[in-house]
Amino acid sequence: VSTTPALVAVDWGTSSFRLWLMSLDGTVLAEHRSHEGMSEVAGRGFEAVLESHLGTLSAPGHLPVVICGMAGSRQGWVEAGYIDTPADVTTIGETATIVPGTARQIIIIPGLAVRSDAEPDVMRGEETQLLGAHFDMPGGERYCMPGTHSKWVSMDGSIVTGFETFMTGELFSVISGKTILKHSTGGDGNVDANDPAFLTGVRDGWTQPAKTTHHLFSIRAGQLLYDHQAGENRARLSGLLIGAEFAGAGIRGDEQIGLVASGALQRLYHAALAECGVQVRDIDADVAVRRGLLESWQRFSTTNGDVQSR
Amino acid sequence: VSTTPALVAVDWGTSSFRLWLMSLDGTVLAEHRSHEGMSEVAGRGFEAVLESHLGTLSAPGHLPVVICGMAGSRQGWVEAGYIDTPADVTTIGETATIVPGTARQIIIIPGLAVRSDAEPDVMRGEETQLLGAHFDMPGGERYCMPGTHSKWVSMDGSIVTGFETFMTGELFSVISGKTILKHSTGGDGNVDANDPAFLTGVRDGWTQPAKTTHHLFSIRAGQLLYDHQAGENRARLSGLLIGAEFAGAGIRGDEQIGLVASGALQRLYHAALAECGVQVRDIDADVAVRRGLLESWQRFSTTNGDVQSR
Repeated sequence: VSTTPALVAVDWGTSSFRLWLMSLDGTVLAEHRSHEGMSEVAGRGFEAVLESHLGTLSAPGHLPVVICGMAGSRQGWVEAGYIDTPADVTTIGETATIVPGTARQIIIIPGLAVRSDAEPDVMRGEETQLLGAHFDMPGGERYCMPGTHSKWVSMDGSIVTGFETFMTGELFSVISGKTILKHSTGGDGNVDANDPAFLTGVRDGWTQPAKTTHHLFSIRAGQLLYDHQAGENRARLSGLLIGAEFAGAGIRGDEQIGLVASGALQRLYHAALAECGVQVRDIDADVAVRRGLLESWQRFSTTNGDVQSR
Repeated sequence: VSTTPALVAVDWGTSSFRLWLMSLDGTVLAEHRSHEGMSEVAGRGFEAVLESHLGTLSAPGHLPVVICGMAGSRQGWVEAGYIDTPADVTTIGETATIVPGTARQIIIIPGLAVRSDAEPDVMRGEETQLLGAHFDMPGGERYCMPGTHSKWVSMDGSIVTGFETFMTGELFSVISGKTILKHSTGGDGNVDANDPAFLTGVRDGWTQPAKTTHHLFSIRAGQLLYDHQAGENRARLSGLLIGAEFAGAGIRGDEQIGLVASGALQRLYHAALAECGVQVRDIDADVAVRRGLLESWQRFSTTNGDVQSR
């Protein structure tokens, strides 16, 4: 285990900032987490925020910084573009974008895009998790990456052949917070993965996805007619949306799926996938993104030696 | 055509107030519309709002007032309860709730409820439209009543055998206004029923409802990758949600459906249903609700003679 810092790895999303000081063998020497996501940072400046964290860590100026996530979007720090599928996930570091005009070497990993007239899609940040997950589960053919915008990825070896995004997490948030259902699902309590209302919702959403927007309203009606309580209603809502996602992703009961997640979402999706008979392989999302950032950096430095030495 | 005022008919919803002064043969002698819906009125008092309109119209004190809509909900003026399906829509006036302690005779029409553990449902206001629509199209077996919460109703003669609510309108509102799609669908322009993006959305939502939450995100991706414009994106979003509603309602290409609607929604749903091969019979929602209020009043006064003479 090496304790020599070699890299600063950063996952910089819309609403969160996570930074790890790492050695070349992947050992985590320090970790910072904050809510300084892209939308909050835009005004203060990305470099200032990054350097304030690095200053606290006394990170030497020669340490490179590798970043993934929305910091690479058009509204972010520097646009890092997209690689089109099919794409070899092991090569994403090669075309990382170098942030210009900084004292430190800072690179941002590109996203992936499905360029299809009928169903275009994009990801940014998940490609780095996916790279880490691929090292953890090299033969994996399908990955589920739940979140605000859940991603379902198909792979053939290290090639991402395609992916689909489902707005599950964001829909849960606006439906429970901004529609008539707010009166029925109020409160912020976490959904329990073992709640029968959650698992029934998963089954209903999975087997009758066309009825989803009707089943949503029946949550309200169930409160009016049967006095169903907020906790149960939230669980059902969560289950319905996750089940509909499974139907859209076309899961089969006999397949193995790599679930790249952590915390509460990991527990919910694991229970939901198991309810549908899927063989789940859990891959910790935090571990995966760190591994992906490190691998991307190594790929970048191997293939961009001339850039490094400038 | 009679010009003697006999009845005040009111459709009092969550966000709108509509009042008609009518003769017994259904002639409209005066009309008031305002935004004094239930949520705004709750503080000022329902009676004060109603009387201020009636005062403007110099409506004689002996004229009865018949009300449908959310004014009869628990959060409304006086709770008017629900009649359980199967329910004979021609009898809803019989069990209207009399508003106590008012100078005028004022009644509120009950809603309808589907009491089902698995898929409970409720309507309030639409039952009165449905009564009017039934008189317009007595043999109709299915009615589509689009709106914030679209209702699909199955009838056998005058019996409502069941109905299903879909949250289509409210989902369009929160998805276009409160999610990442707000950047792609911005603006308030109406969707054009003949826009190819609308009709393609309808087909995609109808034929692949399980993919809906994925198709939503592809609107965002289409903007990022192909610079698709807001008007087209709004049209596609609207079409996808309406198409998914059709899939949930299980429309068949060869059936006749009574479309109870007016204005922009009527044009959108008519075009969408026609795109799916459905034979549409248009029923004006305003005409239907007035007819329903009048019929309810007549039923009430016939069966509650003793109450009237008090």
